[in-house]
Amino acid sequence: MTPPRRIGIVGLGLIGGSIARRLVRCGVEVVGWDTDEATRRAAAAVGVEVPDAMADVCAGGVDVVFLAVPLRALDTVVPVVAEAAATHVVVSDVGSVKGPVTRMMRDAGLAHRYVGTHPMAGTEESGFGASTESLLHDAAWAVTLEAETPYDGVLAVLHLVTRHFAGRVHCLRDQEHDEAVALVSHLPHVLATELLNLAGRSHGSAVALGLAAGSFRDGTRVAGTNPARTEAMVAENAPWVVPAIRSVVADLGRLADSLEAGTDVSAFFREGSAIAARRRAPTGEPGYVELAPGAADWRERLLAVGERGGVVTSVDGQRARFLG
Amino acid sequence: MTPPRRIGIVGLGLIGGSIARRLVRCGVEVVGWDTDEATRRAAAAVGVEVPDAMADVCAGGVDVVFLAVPLRALDTVVPVVAEAAATHVVVSDVGSVKGPVTRMMRDAGLAHRYVGTHPMAGTEESGFGASTESLLHDAAWAVTLEAETPYDGVLAVLHLVTRHFAGRVHCLRDQEHDEAVALVSHLPHVLATELLNLAGRSHGSAVALGLAAGSFRDGTRVAGTNPARTEAMVAENAPWVVPAIRSVVADLGRLADSLEAGTDVSAFFREGSAIAARRRAPTGEPGYVELAPGAADWRERLLAVGERGGVVTSVDGQRARFLG
Repeated sequence: MTPPRRIGIVGLGLIGGSIARRLVRCGVEVVGWDTDEATRRAAAAVGVEVPDAMADVCAGGVDVVFLAVPLRALDTVVPVVAEAAATHVVVSDVGSVKGPVTRMMRDAGLAHRYVGTHPMAGTEESGFGASTESLLHDAAWAVTLEAETPYDGVLAVLHLVTRHFAGRVHCLRDQEHDEAVALVSHLPHVLATELLNLAGRSHGSAVALGLAAGSFRDGTRVAGTNPARTEAMVAENAPWVVPAIRSVVADLGRLADSLEAGTDVSAFFREGSAIAARRRAPTGEPGYVELAPGAADWRERLLAVGERGGVVTSVDGQRARFLG
Repeated sequence: MTPPRRIGIVGLGLIGGSIARRLVRCGVEVVGWDTDEATRRAAAAVGVEVPDAMADVCAGGVDVVFLAVPLRALDTVVPVVAEAAATHVVVSDVGSVKGPVTRMMRDAGLAHRYVGTHPMAGTEESGFGASTESLLHDAAWAVTLEAETPYDGVLAVLHLVTRHFAGRVHCLRDQEHDEAVALVSHLPHVLATELLNLAGRSHGSAVALGLAAGSFRDGTRVAGTNPARTEAMVAENAPWVVPAIRSVVADLGRLADSLEAGTDVSAFFREGSAIAARRRAPTGEPGYVELAPGAADWRERLLAVGERGGVVTSVDGQRARFLG
């Protein structure tokens, strides 16, 4: 593989902007576009090439185009990209749900060029003004593999993510991704919001908020996020978020019953503590997965690494090096 | 009031140890005791006077005795203190529920000398080894006032907390305290534990925990706490924690229904965001409450300050200075 040299980015908000800044700093050519004119000017000022129209992001020998717009905006953006991008251009996106995007790419005839990604990083802020060169540094990324996913596209994306962002890449299927982020990202936003709502709604809310310390501050931090963005993220992944919420409702209902009856609740508290102790970096052996024409089972081998919690940490020629 | 000069502490764990270290550093005489011999030795090494028996903590002209043991240990400790302490000694405790302790003090004939306190600070660690001089610095404290609470005891405690710990003191009734901490401390521990349990229990837990980033890390931080301590804290405040959990169950059940039906959930996310914006330091005028023999309505005036979110920040003669 020739490493990708020119990258297009549609949408220069918190994530798209942070990708752009980082790649510019790494000497990669970046062509970026945003619907907001002030954002386009700000991006141009930090070295992003800004064309006159969205479609031109795909022009000029671009290797990979990242779509970094809200899910609802993809309805507008995907047809433009499908029309404008040469057939060798890899199309990626960075959104927080993957299944609906794969379906959209299939409908647009782009599935065989599409590689879904999701960098697991963010802040409560949004917009290009909040984006930084370092936001995505050393983050976990999901890269999703479906039946049509092209090996050269995966290779290009893995190269970009591991080389320029020091990313640790979890390769997984759309469904695994969407279920996992419902649990580790969307549900935390829901619980943080509920915690803040309840404390703020109580008749003694001045007292409660005054006494609040570390456990409340950390437990509600992401409730300070732009509510429209959080709502969209949760609603777009409703098929996985709803069962997660139902599990919480069932578990907490049982906990309340036990507390009321004065029966033993130690198992509830011990379970979490044991899991916390289990969370750690992958410790398995390193290995390689060949990504080249004729390489057998590359998808299954990458997925098997991802399933046991292993991560791709670099690209060496046409091989993905993994750990765990 | 003569500022308290000699302080007894029973229980030298995370909180008792941190109080002891701070007061020693401030030049206050500290007599401390713990059931654990190694803890007693460690405390003696940092300047705490360690007598041979628990009862002796109350001797030698001690002004205030802090009980910093788990609630279940108070059954053993309170009768010893009731027997050993001279009639002028103020008895305080630092536990996370106040109603049950006030009842215990009434039964022991100590209610007219008792002042309940609760410093809102902690870490996931426990024991004297985890205690520090700075843990409680600049923290919010609750001080609870009931019908029998003595003004001189309140004055002594407010003096210690504001002068040596730079504490911001919320004065409130036991019931207000126990309800508030159910919402801002005990419920966050329950939700953090549930979040970790669910992610760890899912069949894709290696993937989920691998992808987990900031929202999950912050949302589960306190689930790393000693599970027995968390369980005790939650179970001891069950009368207030159970209704809080029931509210979560009801709210989240409705949210899941709406997400499933595809109806509008923006109010849920906007409510939390508006409350987050409202959280800020008290901005009202400063004022004084007289704490002296014959001072009218001192309890009601302190409680009124606390109810609107105001805090006592220092003691000036026999007056408590408040803000807000």
